[in-house]
Amino acid sequence: MNWLEIPIAEISEQSKQEANERQLQLTKPPGSLGKLEELAIMFSAIQKTQKPIINNVHISIFAADHGIADENVSAFPQVVTTEMVKNFSRGGAAISVLAKELNANLEVIDLGTVVEAGELEGVISARIASGTANFANQAAMTQEQLEKAFAAGEAAIQRAIDANAHVFIGGDMGIANTTSATALACVYLDKAPIDLTGAGTGLDEQGVSHKAKVIEKALSMHEASLLDEIEVLRFFGGFEIAALTGAYISAAQKGLPVVIDGFIATAAALAAIKIKPGCDAWFIYAHQSHEQGHRSILEALNADPLVNLNMRLGEASGAAVVIPLLRQACALHGNMATFAEAGVSTGE
Amino acid sequence: MNWLEIPIAEISEQSKQEANERQLQLTKPPGSLGKLEELAIMFSAIQKTQKPIINNVHISIFAADHGIADENVSAFPQVVTTEMVKNFSRGGAAISVLAKELNANLEVIDLGTVVEAGELEGVISARIASGTANFANQAAMTQEQLEKAFAAGEAAIQRAIDANAHVFIGGDMGIANTTSATALACVYLDKAPIDLTGAGTGLDEQGVSHKAKVIEKALSMHEASLLDEIEVLRFFGGFEIAALTGAYISAAQKGLPVVIDGFIATAAALAAIKIKPGCDAWFIYAHQSHEQGHRSILEALNADPLVNLNMRLGEASGAAVVIPLLRQACALHGNMATFAEAGVSTGE
Repeated sequence: MNWLEIPIAEISEQSKQEANERQLQLTKPPGSLGKLEELAIMFSAIQKTQKPIINNVHISIFAADHGIADENVSAFPQVVTTEMVKNFSRGGAAISVLAKELNANLEVIDLGTVVEAGELEGVISARIASGTANFANQAAMTQEQLEKAFAAGEAAIQRAIDANAHVFIGGDMGIANTTSATALACVYLDKAPIDLTGAGTGLDEQGVSHKAKVIEKALSMHEASLLDEIEVLRFFGGFEIAALTGAYISAAQKGLPVVIDGFIATAAALAAIKIKPGCDAWFIYAHQSHEQGHRSILEALNADPLVNLNMRLGEASGAAVVIPLLRQACALHGNMATFAEAGVSTGE
Repeated sequence: MNWLEIPIAEISEQSKQEANERQLQLTKPPGSLGKLEELAIMFSAIQKTQKPIINNVHISIFAADHGIADENVSAFPQVVTTEMVKNFSRGGAAISVLAKELNANLEVIDLGTVVEAGELEGVISARIASGTANFANQAAMTQEQLEKAFAAGEAAIQRAIDANAHVFIGGDMGIANTTSATALACVYLDKAPIDLTGAGTGLDEQGVSHKAKVIEKALSMHEASLLDEIEVLRFFGGFEIAALTGAYISAAQKGLPVVIDGFIATAAALAAIKIKPGCDAWFIYAHQSHEQGHRSILEALNADPLVNLNMRLGEASGAAVVIPLLRQACALHGNMATFAEAGVSTGE
């Protein structure tokens, strides 16, 4: 785990300052493009140019099953993880459609579904096990499994960089993974399961209550064993969540900005920040999802997501949806006329 | 003004139902695409197809000056209206850049700037007068002027329809027009100027307070003369605001959906709803701007804008920014696989 010692890449303060100055010269009242200005300044500073671009988007969907699904915490059967991997491969899923619209690279990494999908186009097999262990009984992962998941995340970032990606998006697929994400959020934020547990893919009230109790019991059982931030992830995470955590830390170390998707991705981002403080300088939070645990994490992180579209699908869909906003922010920054160029009077 | 009698076009309930049924069959938990589902259902129903598209976007920016600018209510000099018209024409403004990114039609209609811009590429001259009258002293427009402004809005919708537009966006340019929009909102919503007046392009606290007093005084002066909803618009509106109002009503009559921009556009939409109830069935509210009057109107209309990016530029920029979300919503609706097609198990 020596790679965790690699420092976070720094964004040049001077580049940021230059981008900020250009924003003030563009033909609009200062600040009137709101968050689009902040995005433009970020990408301009990162790319060290006043003409930043976000042409190449790399999307990695990590798929894996969860032992905790045995506790009847999801509205969908576990085979859906595998079925959705096939759907990604065939281009029928939401993220498949969005990736095509964005002209993005889309890859799926099978980290261990219960039902093996077999060889599929666009799916990388990096199976760690046929799902995690049930954290209602034991730690979800062994140390070796956790390290393999981290490595899968790092490898995705390396592929993104090799493909000259301007931005990375990580996504998740795994039935029962909101249960895992909720447990992580409870420990990292010191909150009660009842306050963070939501409907996931569509539990009714009774289902939500049962899910909260399952988490509550598991938290009590493992409390004494949680020696550090990494152990929390090992006990309650999933392969896909740990891979996202590894990817986010690795991206921040290598200076690749990431757009964080919904609840699962944000729980992974929270783990990343706990394990490697400061990595969030490279994070852009895409959206506020419908899942209440997501809101709690965003609030705790002081994160201000770009949109609230009541989405709650995961699989990177919420992050993909905001890519055009980033592209527009960059286009405005690079292509608007300055007051001087346009002969427009300033307010002074 | 007989055209106001033309009924609002109806969106087929059956088409809506069919689109709704398709959404339930797509490979995702029901409702998990949030507002994107609502948008997809709307466009699917309007276009009577399960493969709706938003390829053709028609953007009309109405520019005009305001007599109320004499009262020192803006941070920018009045000549900026003309300078920005030139900037639109040359492609240097925010909306110019966004329109190019979206591959949209962009036209500018000069309804009467104080300083004449002369002939410019992409600018239609439909000058009514060199700005409205100062509503601190008299009605902003004569009846004839108001009708000309409405007609300019209608003409823009006809051009949009002739260009096979799938959606219409109206934008505004006019120094001091937040003062006009605030006055309109105060009357239509029965609110005090102090509660709705904001900084516009960048007034300081003292400036905002002065602006509120100017509006307050004008409201008192004209109160007794405001015989109906149209008269409110004639007294306090601007040529560009009335043109937007006319455009929105005409679009709803002709069945062309419109994306409503920020504060000025939303004030025009409010006028449209007051004058022609029900026209908002064709409206999509794009964003929550930074201007407090905007929030008040949206709340009063129970409107739930798609994004909140703290924008406050006007000139259709906030509406343009959300077009990719509409396009993604349509692509998801048309191109995702159904549970049956993908062989994915449902939650039942």
